[in-house]
Amino acid sequence: MNSKIPGQFDILAIKRAAERLSGHVTRTPVLNSPMLDQVCGCQVFVKAESLQKTGSFKIRGALNKILSLDAETLRRGVITYSAGNHGQGVAAGAKLIGCPAVIVLPKNAPSIKIENCRWWGAEIVLYDPHTQDRAEVAQKIVEQRGMTFISPFDDFDVMAGQGTTGLELCEQLEEAGITPDAIVVNCSGGGLSAGVITALKVKWPEVDAYIVEPVGFDKMAHSFISGIPEKVTRVPDTIMDAIAGPAAGAKTLPVLLQHGVHGLTVNDNEAKQAVRSAFRFLKLVVEPGGAASLAAVMARKADFTGKKVALICSGGNVDPSIFMHAISE
Amino acid sequence: MNSKIPGQFDILAIKRAAERLSGHVTRTPVLNSPMLDQVCGCQVFVKAESLQKTGSFKIRGALNKILSLDAETLRRGVITYSAGNHGQGVAAGAKLIGCPAVIVLPKNAPSIKIENCRWWGAEIVLYDPHTQDRAEVAQKIVEQRGMTFISPFDDFDVMAGQGTTGLELCEQLEEAGITPDAIVVNCSGGGLSAGVITALKVKWPEVDAYIVEPVGFDKMAHSFISGIPEKVTRVPDTIMDAIAGPAAGAKTLPVLLQHGVHGLTVNDNEAKQAVRSAFRFLKLVVEPGGAASLAAVMARKADFTGKKVALICSGGNVDPSIFMHAISE
Repeated sequence: MNSKIPGQFDILAIKRAAERLSGHVTRTPVLNSPMLDQVCGCQVFVKAESLQKTGSFKIRGALNKILSLDAETLRRGVITYSAGNHGQGVAAGAKLIGCPAVIVLPKNAPSIKIENCRWWGAEIVLYDPHTQDRAEVAQKIVEQRGMTFISPFDDFDVMAGQGTTGLELCEQLEEAGITPDAIVVNCSGGGLSAGVITALKVKWPEVDAYIVEPVGFDKMAHSFISGIPEKVTRVPDTIMDAIAGPAAGAKTLPVLLQHGVHGLTVNDNEAKQAVRSAFRFLKLVVEPGGAASLAAVMARKADFTGKKVALICSGGNVDPSIFMHAISE
Repeated sequence: MNSKIPGQFDILAIKRAAERLSGHVTRTPVLNSPMLDQVCGCQVFVKAESLQKTGSFKIRGALNKILSLDAETLRRGVITYSAGNHGQGVAAGAKLIGCPAVIVLPKNAPSIKIENCRWWGAEIVLYDPHTQDRAEVAQKIVEQRGMTFISPFDDFDVMAGQGTTGLELCEQLEEAGITPDAIVVNCSGGGLSAGVITALKVKWPEVDAYIVEPVGFDKMAHSFISGIPEKVTRVPDTIMDAIAGPAAGAKTLPVLLQHGVHGLTVNDNEAKQAVRSAFRFLKLVVEPGGAASLAAVMARKADFTGKKVALICSGGNVDPSIFMHAISE
């Protein structure tokens, strides 16, 4: 299988990102628990990206994008409009490099999220979600100040940065003498999954690849059928906020299509059980959206029985109340 | 400073243990959080042994002891009487090697602890804590069945195994270009601290070394003064059960004395705050006893201001109810 998207995204981009990010990000461990294996009915190898700086993988993509900019562009700074893991990743990445960052947030955003972005030194621009569109607010600042917008997923540099998670996973599995039968990745826009699955497929072309979305947010699985990036039409409640974005990526979808990736979905209850199992068996704090891939394996959404399954626990930024609810059940 | 205890315990024993354990134990990550650094007023580098197999460092020492036994001794098996982290470490270590293990437990032990030891294939021998002494029960089995007793701390092979945590920490800090000013280790009998501090002192003779005990269980600090291994005379309640043993080790004490180690204490409330901070800033599940060293640094029990402080989060085996209590405050 040819892993190259013409001129834009391939394993070399991921390897270049790994060189750029070296020393800036944590090489997160791959964990295994025989007790968890028994629960899952297969061998599970968990890449614990919840232990990454800022509590999620997002700093990898944001920082790789920032490090791809020339000095003059860097001086003008970067901007995004995520209040969550991507916003923190951009803010922290900008601080590491010493460039300005603007995070556009709704004025009713939880104060803890605003404070986290501000802690990393980002300038916060608040907008009224009832009367303003966040993309327009950001675009205006891009035009006025010459800042560079950092997409949460639909950008080859961002995808390559997230893909370094997969490159590390390949190295770590190989060091342990493990050839995985399957790779399972949480998915919203598809930046992490496109990057990780590209890395795994180049190393092990026969590996079965899966993305996992929340029930009702399975726009990527729908995109696999239609062949065009789909949007969510109804917006159900979910505790998996980290992977509850509205749209599949135009740049990520072709990568996932190329690799013949399968789509799985999990519900909130399954995500909570995975959060509880990560607490009990792996001693990890994982947020519900970060535990979706583990939830899919635990709920045996595909036939993983007896197989070696690699997955990513992608984030750990969870409110204590939601975490307590999950582990108390 | 000469780090060699004549004929018995030195850095070579730790290096031999690291070779023996290679491939059997997890190389746990060293984590840092700028937000946690701000809270602590110093740079904190956390060796996350809570992510170790069985949820604590204990498997290192138990397995190194098991691997030091000859084939005939191994065939007869190993025995210990800890219901907690050491018991699980011995049971899991024995299973990995394929030798029999007996864990002597009080018949009123929590069923989850009994089940955990049994899960790893250990034979459970229950005794009545009102009428029987656990050491006598174990000794009788040692005599009858020729099993090898594995001390939780007072054994050079166990100390060397625990010391591999420190050897890894040295390598990981050096890779990151960090020379620590201080090393802070949770302490009960002293197996982990003797091993870890030996490794750090050989690498960096100028490092300041501290052990941390629960208030009322500071038998090691008292032993530093008297020069002989002290026992706890009164037994207060504590949530730090992992480091609430009754006695300092006769073999660990001289090692700690040799290195000029300082003793610190923390109370339950400080331990809970550290558990909460590990949850929030590091995304780690740490048990209260495993968080004692972090608690000491957070509560500024010594002058760590502006320094580079390495510490061990030594275990993550915590009941959900206690964890929830800690993170809800």
